[in-house]
Amino acid sequence: MNGAESLVRTAVEAGVNVCFTNPGTTEMQLVAALDAVPGVRAVLGLFEGVCTGAADGYGRMTGEPALTLLHLGPGLGNGIANLHNARRAATPIVNLIGDHATWHVANDPPLASDIESLARPVSTWVRTSKDARELSRDAAEAISAARRAPGGVATLVVPSDCAWGKVSDEIASVSTPPPEPVDADAVSEAARALRGGEPCMLMLGGRALREPGLRVAGRIALRCGCRLASETFVARMERGAGLPAVQRLPYFPEQIVEFLADCAHLVLVGTLEPVSFFAYPGQPGRPVPASCRVRSVAGPGGDLVGTLEALADAVGGSGLAAGRAVERPERPSGDLSVGSLGAALAALQPEGAIVVDEAATSGFAYGALSAGCPPHSYLGLTGGAIGQGLPCATGAAVACSDRPVIAFQADGSGMYTLQSLWTQARESLDVTTVVCSNREYRILRVELARADIQEPGPQARALTSLANPPLDWVALARGHGVPGERAESADALVTALERAFAEPGPHLIEAVLA
Amino acid sequence: MNGAESLVRTAVEAGVNVCFTNPGTTEMQLVAALDAVPGVRAVLGLFEGVCTGAADGYGRMTGEPALTLLHLGPGLGNGIANLHNARRAATPIVNLIGDHATWHVANDPPLASDIESLARPVSTWVRTSKDARELSRDAAEAISAARRAPGGVATLVVPSDCAWGKVSDEIASVSTPPPEPVDADAVSEAARALRGGEPCMLMLGGRALREPGLRVAGRIALRCGCRLASETFVARMERGAGLPAVQRLPYFPEQIVEFLADCAHLVLVGTLEPVSFFAYPGQPGRPVPASCRVRSVAGPGGDLVGTLEALADAVGGSGLAAGRAVERPERPSGDLSVGSLGAALAALQPEGAIVVDEAATSGFAYGALSAGCPPHSYLGLTGGAIGQGLPCATGAAVACSDRPVIAFQADGSGMYTLQSLWTQARESLDVTTVVCSNREYRILRVELARADIQEPGPQARALTSLANPPLDWVALARGHGVPGERAESADALVTALERAFAEPGPHLIEAVLA
Repeated sequence: MNGAESLVRTAVEAGVNVCFTNPGTTEMQLVAALDAVPGVRAVLGLFEGVCTGAADGYGRMTGEPALTLLHLGPGLGNGIANLHNARRAATPIVNLIGDHATWHVANDPPLASDIESLARPVSTWVRTSKDARELSRDAAEAISAARRAPGGVATLVVPSDCAWGKVSDEIASVSTPPPEPVDADAVSEAARALRGGEPCMLMLGGRALREPGLRVAGRIALRCGCRLASETFVARMERGAGLPAVQRLPYFPEQIVEFLADCAHLVLVGTLEPVSFFAYPGQPGRPVPASCRVRSVAGPGGDLVGTLEALADAVGGSGLAAGRAVERPERPSGDLSVGSLGAALAALQPEGAIVVDEAATSGFAYGALSAGCPPHSYLGLTGGAIGQGLPCATGAAVACSDRPVIAFQADGSGMYTLQSLWTQARESLDVTTVVCSNREYRILRVELARADIQEPGPQARALTSLANPPLDWVALARGHGVPGERAESADALVTALERAFAEPGPHLIEAVLA
Repeated sequence: MNGAESLVRTAVEAGVNVCFTNPGTTEMQLVAALDAVPGVRAVLGLFEGVCTGAADGYGRMTGEPALTLLHLGPGLGNGIANLHNARRAATPIVNLIGDHATWHVANDPPLASDIESLARPVSTWVRTSKDARELSRDAAEAISAARRAPGGVATLVVPSDCAWGKVSDEIASVSTPPPEPVDADAVSEAARALRGGEPCMLMLGGRALREPGLRVAGRIALRCGCRLASETFVARMERGAGLPAVQRLPYFPEQIVEFLADCAHLVLVGTLEPVSFFAYPGQPGRPVPASCRVRSVAGPGGDLVGTLEALADAVGGSGLAAGRAVERPERPSGDLSVGSLGAALAALQPEGAIVVDEAATSGFAYGALSAGCPPHSYLGLTGGAIGQGLPCATGAAVACSDRPVIAFQADGSGMYTLQSLWTQARESLDVTTVVCSNREYRILRVELARADIQEPGPQARALTSLANPPLDWVALARGHGVPGERAESADALVTALERAFAEPGPHLIEAVLA
């Protein structure tokens, strides 16, 4: 057995069985090991940002790390943006980064660079193996680090001589650390606040937004009359009929101030105090009003469902909260707008859909319109690094082959990692991509105005426009092997969505909003 | 004036006047400053790897830094692979990376990460500005660092409050450091070796491969009977009729051993001792044979033309070397193969063409076939980070609007940064892209065999295949606004090339080798 095989065996025995990869020369032994040791499905991406974003989507849906296998510093570099999103989503991922042989690094060959320096900003755990005999142990520790609550990105650099070196048959086992225990004092204190009669908000993050946590939170809200809220950008939230209503924290700081204006107590479970996404002159970076007292009952690494159950017990919240009933908008007709686009999707999305939302400004109407859809999973842009939607949808579809996936995608962001479409075609993934084609970076038009640039000059206008030439998304889809069609009215979009949802495999619909 | 305007004014006054960008919220003041302060042409890329690769191509052709303007850590992350290539090419580039306001960083908003840690592996100079009043000075020092011989990647992180803060009208001026002076002792010693009667090779790198250096090197070769060689992957080399013949150092270590087997003295000007691109078990990382004495006359940061002139004087090389005559292959017909593809390009490439070669295994025949073409510039993949060709061609075309540009492009690598095509369409750049569509990562099939994996398993075969589904490059081109056609024979390729070279603006030809 060589080091590469010992590494793959370690992963298989720990139950890690998918690898999103774009390998190169330094990874050849690891590629061969994926055949020699059965148990890991290898999924090729034509660009590393596809691989890391897919691992993020996979981890959000399974709770388990996928492997990525990437080629030296530049291969990792290409994956950094979506690893940033994964880190912010607390998704478990194990990156394997091939490197030059230990004895060749000092020769500074052309592809050499400081891989650890690139890895650290997006990883909770980083190590470079030094010897083939350490690969199994290093891989086991990487998997363990990725699984540590709330989940993290572990990056293991694998020099090629460690991969090809001979090793014994011994395999290290993986221990999974438990989450932080329930903090009884924090629970009591929060329970007092929630029962105190003042307006309260219970804000949930991370795995508290999955079904078990939401059901308990619904009991607390029913008992105490408090509002439930989520972070602005959630890694994954279960939503729809049968589940309690959760308000999403708004985006701009002045909106957050207003959202919390009447709130005397903000109780946090699995999330941190809200901060402004960007800084603006004269606006607060921490927009929670001084009149609102913030109490953290459990941080992101805590036992979130356990904490919510303890809190429900403390407030006496034993009643069953009535989840909302199924309520969908009518199928829209007429012009295609942000409103009719959101309505079409909400009217038609299949039960059990996984909705990956990177629609940016084009998604503003969908959230409220879809709140009463049949149960679905909703995945957001946690780290703000665009180019997350198409890869994340790809990985979610690999994770959940029995569920339909919808990539609700802004055009500008979609262009970052459009190569995802090819992996969807190759793996026959049931992903319906709706590209919101407004032919602008519209959020930047908003931000220019917020920055007091009321009349942008010709270069500012050009740098926020995608109109010249217009992108032809139907051709781009076809180029990647995905059938596509263009919808220029709400009626056409409805027809296209019905067709796409009725057929297995990937489809792309360009919804022209311009 | 605000900090952003002072920064742009500093660049304009230093003669830096192109900016390749994909900006975001934290860059809005810098975008506005590109209108407020005339003199910098802003070129939008739909992905940051396009921007950094274009800046690399621009810098290789002009010798001057372009600006890039990128959005926080993830925006820089997306540009890292091509900055790696630029660092290895010693291309002058000034990256401006927008960041959160200084007072907001401690709040750890979602898009925050350690930008300097990402920047250092690809930069020769890194700084984060702390105050609006320092932006002009910091920009001046970044430009100076980028211009320091042989050229470098300077990265300046610009917090948004530094960009919007008010400053005085004072602008810092840029000093350009001189190259390292000629080393007279090293010249004398090398001259003795070159005149000593033993077989010698003069190996050139960096700017020694431009016309002035090559002409002097030709005189030395004529006088001493030595061979001239270049690095395997050159940043830029002038080639063709009228210039001396320069052999390219081969790629694999065993080939380098053979290439240098008869060589008693290897004299280096502007380059370092050759190293193996990758490590292989039992093969040397430094493949220069022990029988070959290596002498460096000037490192990459030296006065290379001055050094060559001193060396020519020292050996008495005053005669005019006869450059090679124009000699092109016939237009090929019949099947499309690596040979006929190279012949078609060499038969037809226009005089003064800029050829960006990321053809990988599909380019093996072109080098020898094109050696006698009319004078042209040849740009290679210096850092081995694929996805360089299309962006580099884009930037070269921005730099040299009067010269035809050819992107000679492997299909697998081309998929990394295909968004470049849109910038070519938008800016009406005269780039002819020839995609070598062999529908494989063929180099990895070679590397699997070299790694003793003679019969790759199903996953290894799948991970090196692009055949399922085949990419439709004509559709991909159309999707980006570039006219494309497919050639499945040498005759069809000849016709397509003639058409593309005859028309201005971008064209793409998919040359099907599969």
